[in-house]
Amino acid sequence: MRKLIFLVFLIALGPVFGQNKDEKQIRAIYDTALLDAKGYDWLEYLSNQIGGRLSGSLNAEMAVNYTKKQLDSLGLDNVWLQPVMVPKWVRGTPEIAYIETSPGKTTNVPVCALGGSVATPATGIKAQVVEVQGLEDLEKLGREKVEGKIVFYNRPMQANLIQTFEAYGGCVDQRYSGAMEAGKYGAVGVIVRSMNLRLDDYPHAGAMSYGDMPESQRIPAAAISTNGAELLSGMLKLNPDIRFYLKQTCRQYEDVKSYNVIGEIKGSERPDEIMVVGGHLDSWDLGDGAHDDGAGCVQSMEVLRLLKKTGYKPKRTLRVVLFMNEENGLRGGNKYAEVARAKNEKHVFALESDAGGFTPRGFNLECNDSQYNLINSWKPLFEPYLIHLFRKGHSGADIRPLKENDIVLAGLMPDSQRYFDHHHAANDTFEHVNKRELQLGAATMASLVYLVDKYLK
Amino acid sequence: MRKLIFLVFLIALGPVFGQNKDEKQIRAIYDTALLDAKGYDWLEYLSNQIGGRLSGSLNAEMAVNYTKKQLDSLGLDNVWLQPVMVPKWVRGTPEIAYIETSPGKTTNVPVCALGGSVATPATGIKAQVVEVQGLEDLEKLGREKVEGKIVFYNRPMQANLIQTFEAYGGCVDQRYSGAMEAGKYGAVGVIVRSMNLRLDDYPHAGAMSYGDMPESQRIPAAAISTNGAELLSGMLKLNPDIRFYLKQTCRQYEDVKSYNVIGEIKGSERPDEIMVVGGHLDSWDLGDGAHDDGAGCVQSMEVLRLLKKTGYKPKRTLRVVLFMNEENGLRGGNKYAEVARAKNEKHVFALESDAGGFTPRGFNLECNDSQYNLINSWKPLFEPYLIHLFRKGHSGADIRPLKENDIVLAGLMPDSQRYFDHHHAANDTFEHVNKRELQLGAATMASLVYLVDKYLK
Repeated sequence: MRKLIFLVFLIALGPVFGQNKDEKQIRAIYDTALLDAKGYDWLEYLSNQIGGRLSGSLNAEMAVNYTKKQLDSLGLDNVWLQPVMVPKWVRGTPEIAYIETSPGKTTNVPVCALGGSVATPATGIKAQVVEVQGLEDLEKLGREKVEGKIVFYNRPMQANLIQTFEAYGGCVDQRYSGAMEAGKYGAVGVIVRSMNLRLDDYPHAGAMSYGDMPESQRIPAAAISTNGAELLSGMLKLNPDIRFYLKQTCRQYEDVKSYNVIGEIKGSERPDEIMVVGGHLDSWDLGDGAHDDGAGCVQSMEVLRLLKKTGYKPKRTLRVVLFMNEENGLRGGNKYAEVARAKNEKHVFALESDAGGFTPRGFNLECNDSQYNLINSWKPLFEPYLIHLFRKGHSGADIRPLKENDIVLAGLMPDSQRYFDHHHAANDTFEHVNKRELQLGAATMASLVYLVDKYLK
Repeated sequence: MRKLIFLVFLIALGPVFGQNKDEKQIRAIYDTALLDAKGYDWLEYLSNQIGGRLSGSLNAEMAVNYTKKQLDSLGLDNVWLQPVMVPKWVRGTPEIAYIETSPGKTTNVPVCALGGSVATPATGIKAQVVEVQGLEDLEKLGREKVEGKIVFYNRPMQANLIQTFEAYGGCVDQRYSGAMEAGKYGAVGVIVRSMNLRLDDYPHAGAMSYGDMPESQRIPAAAISTNGAELLSGMLKLNPDIRFYLKQTCRQYEDVKSYNVIGEIKGSERPDEIMVVGGHLDSWDLGDGAHDDGAGCVQSMEVLRLLKKTGYKPKRTLRVVLFMNEENGLRGGNKYAEVARAKNEKHVFALESDAGGFTPRGFNLECNDSQYNLINSWKPLFEPYLIHLFRKGHSGADIRPLKENDIVLAGLMPDSQRYFDHHHAANDTFEHVNKRELQLGAATMASLVYLVDKYLK
């Protein structure tokens, strides 16, 4: 009887022992992240010593060299650069835009060329403006009301959506496809309201596309600050005949060679199964890219450092990948997946951080139901760290090309309320990243990697 | 049979219908808070047009008048001022402090007098420094090692605590009681490391007390910035004989008359049962008090506006109370409870917001188990708004004097990671409050008030 009781006791405590070990490992990860941080210092360098890292720029090259050197210093098993050809788009001299109410009577407004846009003629363009609330308005207006004009896309982000990424998703077609669509109706240029929930004076950059439109038909596209958009819209209501002037000198060059930066710890038991953690090293050029996505890069580097520092040796091979060119091409993400497939590498898990360095709230997961249920069962381990959200949803652009049967894709989900105040704008800068928030994100990622490594079948 | 099925159907849908109504009301509250915000504008005025609102100051008086006027404009049933005598402590001319390594060789460091401290002599004090890690070190050192010296309290906030208020609670005794304790050992002054998790140059003010120590024995107390504390500590390690100079001209005046600002909507069914929602109108003087606690005041005002605007008429009387003098006396909170008891008012619920205007995460609750279980059962209604935390814990200083049998006390719990970067310092300013985060907090409070009004027995 005694023996039986003892056995029951052991069985009952079994999962508790396991739990306790996990609790301790996770506690050690968070403690190290908060008491012995490294990610924040790396971000300081990337942001303040290097700055904006647009694909193909000198800064992007410096960031490749700097992060490789930092990974080299961590004592990983392998660190290497994976070559990838990337687009090189250059903004040129600062853009100029103004509203002209009558000849010579002008009001300057803050704009920036959208990434991938063509330049205006050297003397700029000046035309009447037609304001629309989205792509679908063009068909209603028809060619005669659009031809020869500048189309002004002014549908704002929907402020009552709690998750700001949803509000972004509901607007970004104007930026991405606005010029291509307006060009079909004979517009001479487009102005897009910045993807920003706040009213301020920052124009927000971002990628746009002409699809397969011939070069001769491409029209210039620029973002206008939200205050500028409000002003322009208000003035159009008073006088629909006002004109808008835009001058930008941006240019697309030939593709240039760049790199994904990769480091790995070889798995102790299943070295052929690969787990990836990453962010993208490139950024837009207006700010220093601290939130988008310097934060995700240094958090990903931290994951390997935190696991090493806390003495955890992954059973599977753990790779950090700093992807190049997420912003205007996704070449790095595509190249990484292409090479992985060519080498027949088996990827079981990939985690991306690309939603800012704010307080972590949970994860978006792309996986099957049984994988989801497994991950969701770890919720109690995360609750002491105020991590509550485990839901199905978009993981991350750079890891998405890895998607195939059985791989678990995850995206860190930080608090999103402030993100679009800074996203792609001149105020995406280091001082807006809080050290604790950044480091908590890194610890949250490292804890998920630890649990996946240990418990994923 | 048909009838029975229909009946079962009705019963089954009963709670769902109720749920749907609650879901709709709460959705309307959040929509209004985000699409038709008022709190953020009020905060802009309080912060930028008025500024820091230390009890007894002209600014505090202006804030009383401004908020009363705004409440008047909301069409409430009653708005009034509740007189309360408050302490009047004035900082005087900016403090001066430096470290002297040898005669004439000095390094200035940023300090501020702690609230309630006495001044130094007009020529300042200069003395050797003894660094301690807390009050308990004084006994170990004994009078001979303390007498005639400046005691430097340098125990930092514990960075690996996830909830920063816990880290604050673990340090603040140095600030509050440091001078009183050091005075007993013959110290001539105290310098306290700022309650700040970040390394920066802002000294953080805050209340201190001499207990019932005679005036003649009181010694001056100042906070030093965290960078200053690190520097001083480092220099002491190199040379324990360095001297510290401090000059401050602060002064405690006679108590002056001020006010709690109160507005109410009379309950439609149970007017004698009172629900309170509030924050404190006073602040420290170095910044503009936007987070502490301008945010809590305007969120509390918003609660009444949001319920009115969404057409909800409370069954119980709902009061907003903007308490005066939380920071250095709690006179407003005590006065409100005293008057309530004298008038035999029945308070069933009180909710305070005094932890910054950051993204809301949940509530701290002081209540009995059945009340807790009721409130916790509303969790699913809050989840779409990313509100997850319903736990027992400290509600709020101003509403605590109302504590007695059966009353439910609650404190809004925002994300706390950045709070102590700004708390009581010159950088507690409007630009560090995010409009969405502030308004989400107001909506979260209004939703809780709605559910309490509807479902609390």
